[in-house]
Amino acid sequence: MKTIILIGALGKMGQAALTGLGNHKVITAGRSGDVDHLVDITNEDSIHALYEHVGHFDAVINTVGYCEYADFTQMTQEQWMTTIMSKMMGQINLVRIGQQYIADGGSFTLISGILNTKPIPYAIADATTSGAIDTFVKCVALEMPRNIRINVVNPTVLIEAWDVYGDMMPGFEPVSGKLVGKAFERSVDGFITGEVLIVDA
Amino acid sequence: MKTIILIGALGKMGQAALTGLGNHKVITAGRSGDVDHLVDITNEDSIHALYEHVGHFDAVINTVGYCEYADFTQMTQEQWMTTIMSKMMGQINLVRIGQQYIADGGSFTLISGILNTKPIPYAIADATTSGAIDTFVKCVALEMPRNIRINVVNPTVLIEAWDVYGDMMPGFEPVSGKLVGKAFERSVDGFITGEVLIVDA
Repeated sequence: MKTIILIGALGKMGQAALTGLGNHKVITAGRSGDVDHLVDITNEDSIHALYEHVGHFDAVINTVGYCEYADFTQMTQEQWMTTIMSKMMGQINLVRIGQQYIADGGSFTLISGILNTKPIPYAIADATTSGAIDTFVKCVALEMPRNIRINVVNPTVLIEAWDVYGDMMPGFEPVSGKLVGKAFERSVDGFITGEVLIVDA
Repeated sequence: MKTIILIGALGKMGQAALTGLGNHKVITAGRSGDVDHLVDITNEDSIHALYEHVGHFDAVINTVGYCEYADFTQMTQEQWMTTIMSKMMGQINLVRIGQQYIADGGSFTLISGILNTKPIPYAIADATTSGAIDTFVKCVALEMPRNIRINVVNPTVLIEAWDVYGDMMPGFEPVSGKLVGKAFERSVDGFITGEVLIVDA
């Protein structure tokens, strides 16, 4: 049994991840709500505080990353930076800071999203930062100390979120949270590292 | 004959690009030195000023993007942000702002680099932002107004820079600036868009 910090535990992607973590002790974290620890991944001090408070842990799963959506020609630098500081720098910081605290042989599992390979309107900042995170994971795996592993789950839209996003994603086939949960399980319980785990139908 | 703004014209990559632009009027730009226009791509006002001063232009080629190099475990958020604000946000801003000024049917050509697919030590920020830019170009091409095209040249190390970088890149084969210049030429004079033009040996 591993101790896993699950960030964004109350969201739909967090709940999807949770379906794959039944064998483990899960410590929930998020920006708000009824979680074990509050954390804002855009704030370095908040990330340090999370890891300090948890103490021993074997894995970190992040399922959050705020993105702004707009036409490229309309999107401001501020909207770009909000997205970059959360979905990209926030996730990098979870690993950068977390590798100081995580147990030997531990694992990080980040989140990206299918829009970097299946583009749709309004999602350029989401797609670009997903591309950054997929690349980051593939490359940084070679640098992780103490046998620490790192992967990223790159899912298509969830069935559970289809009522919200379906209209924006014509021709996409949603997948179940349970299938996405398998990818998180494979990252945490497998021996793979540096992989982009695409979950698409 | 097209009017092309070449940013980083005095650098080795700028000189490589120049070898492919013999049929055109090239307006040189850069952060310093003997160029037609000074520009700092990390500064939105500076980018606006460049385009305002040039007036009519058909193409923008960017060959610059400052990166910090360090072990991932040692790299600070500040070093990450310096890289992101230049190589990633700086290049995105060249397009975001430039699409307001460029001629109908014009083209942007950005720069990334081979380290996102052939990782080496110390280059995680370079690799990650190259991955971001490659993804950005592939996706944003679908949103460009007025038949504007966009591509990115993703080269390996130049023969002309091998004396500086060769020791850090064992097993890499450098390519000539002239071959890289062909990629820039293909982007500017072709009809392709949304492509990552890899130049590797």
